[in-house]
Amino acid sequence: MKICIVGLGLIGGSLAKAIKKNTDNMVFGIDLNKTSVESAIAQEAIDAELDEKELDSCDMVILGLYPQTTIDYINKHKSGFRKGCIVIDTCGIKTAVVEAAEKAFAGTGVNFLGCHPMAGREFWGFAYSVDNLFEKASFIMTPTENTPKEVVDKVSAFAKEIGFARCVISTPQEHDEVIAFTSQLAHVVSSAYIKSPSLLKQSGFSAGSFKDLTRVAKLNEDMWTSLFLLNREPLLNEIEHIISSLSDYRDAIKADDADRLHTLLKEGRELKELSTQNDVKK
Amino acid sequence: MKICIVGLGLIGGSLAKAIKKNTDNMVFGIDLNKTSVESAIAQEAIDAELDEKELDSCDMVILGLYPQTTIDYINKHKSGFRKGCIVIDTCGIKTAVVEAAEKAFAGTGVNFLGCHPMAGREFWGFAYSVDNLFEKASFIMTPTENTPKEVVDKVSAFAKEIGFARCVISTPQEHDEVIAFTSQLAHVVSSAYIKSPSLLKQSGFSAGSFKDLTRVAKLNEDMWTSLFLLNREPLLNEIEHIISSLSDYRDAIKADDADRLHTLLKEGRELKELSTQNDVKK
Repeated sequence: MKICIVGLGLIGGSLAKAIKKNTDNMVFGIDLNKTSVESAIAQEAIDAELDEKELDSCDMVILGLYPQTTIDYINKHKSGFRKGCIVIDTCGIKTAVVEAAEKAFAGTGVNFLGCHPMAGREFWGFAYSVDNLFEKASFIMTPTENTPKEVVDKVSAFAKEIGFARCVISTPQEHDEVIAFTSQLAHVVSSAYIKSPSLLKQSGFSAGSFKDLTRVAKLNEDMWTSLFLLNREPLLNEIEHIISSLSDYRDAIKADDADRLHTLLKEGRELKELSTQNDVKK
Repeated sequence: MKICIVGLGLIGGSLAKAIKKNTDNMVFGIDLNKTSVESAIAQEAIDAELDEKELDSCDMVILGLYPQTTIDYINKHKSGFRKGCIVIDTCGIKTAVVEAAEKAFAGTGVNFLGCHPMAGREFWGFAYSVDNLFEKASFIMTPTENTPKEVVDKVSAFAKEIGFARCVISTPQEHDEVIAFTSQLAHVVSSAYIKSPSLLKQSGFSAGSFKDLTRVAKLNEDMWTSLFLLNREPLLNEIEHIISSLSDYRDAIKADDADRLHTLLKEGRELKELSTQNDVKK
């Protein structure tokens, strides 16, 4: 296959390296940042830069761009891909991207499949890309009734080949609801947590729990602003839920109600154990 | 020194093992749970069980008990220690314990020092104790105007000797305020986080951020109920603060206000970077 990766950041760059490491496919790259392109060539993550006019020479195009940029890129270049080409994105939200892509590609013969490689780092840019970022990661695909089954099969086999631990099929809506909880809420809570006035007194008083709760506060605010605003309803539901849940603990503590507080904590422990067991089983 | 550890749970048991590994002190143990005592002897974590009537033979007594149990134990046995004996506790809150202990020991010649070994696991009981639990941990001490300096020096040297990475001196009040943020709030948030109705759909959709945010939801609800209720005001302040902080993010998302959301996330990233730099410098 001739593959082009548009956007050689952390994810695009790591995908390029994983493809080159694990397959014999030709990999080309496009990025506005010429340093990223040069680094990708120097590190043999891509074979060469691609001229955008030659997108129609590719069998697969992977968009490693922010959500709104992905939508804009598809709308601008929708006639530039060849019939039968598989186009996948890598955004952390799916409904907005898949709807825009299916609208843009309608009648063109291009096969779009929304995808989300579930991996990341607290760093971004090609400089931090690595060929094993996806080794323990899930590769989520969100086909619709317009997606041919053979496209899903082909992309699924490709994801396994380049090193993903497993593939998960979901709908764009289900993906966005669950990701609002497992990923977006984690970033909101971590960012909100670190804003206590107690922060700068904490040195020497921190065990692992503080580090865990605040790790992802080190985020790329450009990308996450876009992700959050394109997934407003599911994320707002989760934020409202945790505020309401935190209020239960607050009320029990304020009322000095040991039984109620004990029950809240016990329920939390049991849910955590249940979710860990479910993970192990799968 | 002849040392007695009262309460051979995760912390008491790990302290016993660390003392035996790193020093030549004699270590005795007391626990209502006879299996823990037998295991501690079998694993050479203690030299023998101590009869409570012989507490007055000890140079140092370490209380590895829950907060309320620590206070009750001190009140019951306050006349059972010998003059000059050093008694330390290991509770995660200090003001309530130190006040009760100083009141109980007033005029007895017993030297009480409030201590908090900053380490833990998501397991509890002697069976999970290990001799290296404290290797990267801080040992916090909260002397008052009644604590002789030589007692602080002696306990500090002892903590270093048995493997703590560093000793921190604080006041009971400052300790409780900071710990409400770095440790107690983390446990409240983690427990509240896991209660979303989305929880049981998350398998395959979780990257590291979800695991980090919910790790400490697996907690010992007996101990944490006691810790929270003996530190109500500082913890309530922190919970109110994160609810207010989360509400800022919610409002920005609800209003579709990209600038405001971007600023909130950027501030969070910068505070995280600042707090990491401060940690590295110390």
